[in-house]
Amino acid sequence: MTAQDRLDQLFDYLRFASISTDSQHTKDTRDCAEWLVAKFQKMGMSVDLHPTPGHPIVVAKNEHKAGRPTVLIYGHYDVQPVDPVELWDSPPFEPTVRDGVIFARGSTDNKGQNLAHILGVEQSLMEDGDVPVNLTFLIEGEEEIGSPNLDPFLEANRELLKCDVVAVSDTGMVAPGVPTLTYGLRGIACLEFKLTGPFVDLHSGIYGGAVANPAMVAAQIAASLSDAKTGRVLVDGFYDAVQPLQDWEKETWSRLPDADQEMFEQTGVPQLFGETGFDSYERRWARPTIEVNGIGGGYQGEGSKTVIPKEAMVKLSCRLVPDQDPDEIQKLVASHLRKHCPESVKMEIEPGHSGHSYVMDPNTGYGLAAQKALRATFDADPMLIREGGSIPIIQSFKDVLGVDTLMLGLALPDCMAHAPNENFPIENFEAGVRMNRALLKELAK
Amino acid sequence: MTAQDRLDQLFDYLRFASISTDSQHTKDTRDCAEWLVAKFQKMGMSVDLHPTPGHPIVVAKNEHKAGRPTVLIYGHYDVQPVDPVELWDSPPFEPTVRDGVIFARGSTDNKGQNLAHILGVEQSLMEDGDVPVNLTFLIEGEEEIGSPNLDPFLEANRELLKCDVVAVSDTGMVAPGVPTLTYGLRGIACLEFKLTGPFVDLHSGIYGGAVANPAMVAAQIAASLSDAKTGRVLVDGFYDAVQPLQDWEKETWSRLPDADQEMFEQTGVPQLFGETGFDSYERRWARPTIEVNGIGGGYQGEGSKTVIPKEAMVKLSCRLVPDQDPDEIQKLVASHLRKHCPESVKMEIEPGHSGHSYVMDPNTGYGLAAQKALRATFDADPMLIREGGSIPIIQSFKDVLGVDTLMLGLALPDCMAHAPNENFPIENFEAGVRMNRALLKELAK
Repeated sequence: MTAQDRLDQLFDYLRFASISTDSQHTKDTRDCAEWLVAKFQKMGMSVDLHPTPGHPIVVAKNEHKAGRPTVLIYGHYDVQPVDPVELWDSPPFEPTVRDGVIFARGSTDNKGQNLAHILGVEQSLMEDGDVPVNLTFLIEGEEEIGSPNLDPFLEANRELLKCDVVAVSDTGMVAPGVPTLTYGLRGIACLEFKLTGPFVDLHSGIYGGAVANPAMVAAQIAASLSDAKTGRVLVDGFYDAVQPLQDWEKETWSRLPDADQEMFEQTGVPQLFGETGFDSYERRWARPTIEVNGIGGGYQGEGSKTVIPKEAMVKLSCRLVPDQDPDEIQKLVASHLRKHCPESVKMEIEPGHSGHSYVMDPNTGYGLAAQKALRATFDADPMLIREGGSIPIIQSFKDVLGVDTLMLGLALPDCMAHAPNENFPIENFEAGVRMNRALLKELAK
Repeated sequence: MTAQDRLDQLFDYLRFASISTDSQHTKDTRDCAEWLVAKFQKMGMSVDLHPTPGHPIVVAKNEHKAGRPTVLIYGHYDVQPVDPVELWDSPPFEPTVRDGVIFARGSTDNKGQNLAHILGVEQSLMEDGDVPVNLTFLIEGEEEIGSPNLDPFLEANRELLKCDVVAVSDTGMVAPGVPTLTYGLRGIACLEFKLTGPFVDLHSGIYGGAVANPAMVAAQIAASLSDAKTGRVLVDGFYDAVQPLQDWEKETWSRLPDADQEMFEQTGVPQLFGETGFDSYERRWARPTIEVNGIGGGYQGEGSKTVIPKEAMVKLSCRLVPDQDPDEIQKLVASHLRKHCPESVKMEIEPGHSGHSYVMDPNTGYGLAAQKALRATFDADPMLIREGGSIPIIQSFKDVLGVDTLMLGLALPDCMAHAPNENFPIENFEAGVRMNRALLKELAK
């Protein structure tokens, strides 16, 4: 199979507008799943399309034999919406190559990365007759809408999906050509509160000064959550369970390129800001946060309207690190909010979604195998990092299947996942194919 | 003229849907002004309809003679919109009497009150051949949209409008049957600030902890403006010019009925709250405030979206008391905002509208005359109060015409001005007619 053959197949895969959140694309999404089924059949693997209340899940296997480790490769065939479509330089579902880079929705997230694994396996099957491990592909169609049907599927199919380790390529590389193994993710705990004062917005002349202003109180309560100077969260007990970085992590991370300038330019902020005493990597990957994701109350239109708003609301989320428990953190924050709420307004707190942080040891067993595979593929020492976001499915693999996940990222910082002009270098796609073969070899050892 | 004749005329006046803010009602508004013109002509007064870039201004005069004081009676013939119209128990422009109360848009604010003055004058003209003062009616059609053309009109017509005192009935009575002279109003100073952080909303997992969150910073800055415990404004210099209440004011206000329970029930707040050391009357009428009229940033829809918002904004207004200067207060607040803004976000401050507080001495000259007229009309001692809102035209009369304004309120606290089911008791309407006659008599002395 030539590189052009592989690229053609990726283009076929990318042409499906498999936007999972949009019911107008339900058929495109299903067609995309069926394309995968046909692909696995052609490769000689056994494959099933499992219906769910939403989009179907593809499970494909080679012949599982005793005495070999079982590796589950996870990916997703669904993609994000394409709006605002006018910001795309080429149509999102007509893949286009410019300067060695593929532009299309899903090119990075996640079709480019998961097809690289599939094509790596196909190559091995063609050249070697088999891959050296028992292999299970699990490719779902609802990752971009929060994988609502994956957990039940895992729970109902523990035996089918039984494995020793999971491999996923849906994370990033710290820089082009720098192989990257992600061994940790932050967790999350969301909640929001709403304050209610008067029945209706009040005239701030008539009543101002004699009743509490819910928008002001909301600001006061939000402000009480963290120290404006040090960036430290001020919720009692928030840091109690937080584990400090291990020495090897500090040492490894100290070798990462200084990303502050890049972050400064990418984000456009006037100045970086974070918790005193930690660098940006630690702040993003190893320190917990509390953020106001949304705040609203009163008049937000043009000009002024001198009211005391009847209500205000604040949406909060905490990013969590080992060993913070999301339920516990939600309780601590809620208790802080209630403690800081005066009796002059009524508070309602609504907990939102939550998920544990994740961390594995990359320096033993399968982690070391992954490092070797990355080194072989890219001819460079792999970087061992964590990431700041949350990938709930990784925790599900741990909780339901009882296994760790190797996150072997192929996305570059400027691949524009979820944004217009999403792209993926052909080089990374090809590296993904090689990486798959190296990985399965190492995991078999 | 019988009471029924008067009521019929008020009904005619109320039937005009003179909603000044709505260009669909431009004709209704003009028709209403012309109805006034015809009314004054029928009364034998000289009257002119003065065009403005907006709705016209009606000016009517009796014959001005030397040796009499000149009294300008101000009012407005425009009304607020009627939405949500489905909350009205009877159509807003079909006046209806229920239990001695007139229900219609404009019944209290301001047609019922200004027609009472007109009909008082008509009665005097019929019975006495003249009123005992030189009289000028000034009735505009843009009060509900901020009187944009009144100040230029005053400035261009100083000679036409020259007077010794202004009388207005567009304020409230502290309780039914309690005559009320308002001798002070709070001023206002508005401004808003906007904070900008990153170019776009950022993923709070990827960047959270390493860049400032504009919504959180907005909350912190807003919270810095006042003390959550004492309700005191924390802007340096904010209280420097504030005059304490005079002894007679304290004494007078101490005789006001306790309005806390009423305010509690009217507003529906869980608990009243205001500046420590002051009662609710002082808090609303004699103490300055800073309010968050609007706050917004990030995701405000259903559920959660874990972003670091790229921007957030806060709309503020201060209610001012003598002798705070609105420009100075805007500067002090802006300086406070800048001082509390970290370098991790960009701040833009936009000043809004402003107006001086107003206070006159009700215990000398025309003030005493007004008190006597109120006592005679209602057969009860008048209460001397201030109000918490701002009426910029009152300050304009002071600034442009150089005269004080007597605010003789006829509205009750439950007259629902600006709201559905606006209403005005026939009793108050009739009292207004008598009050006008008593007032002009006393002012003539």
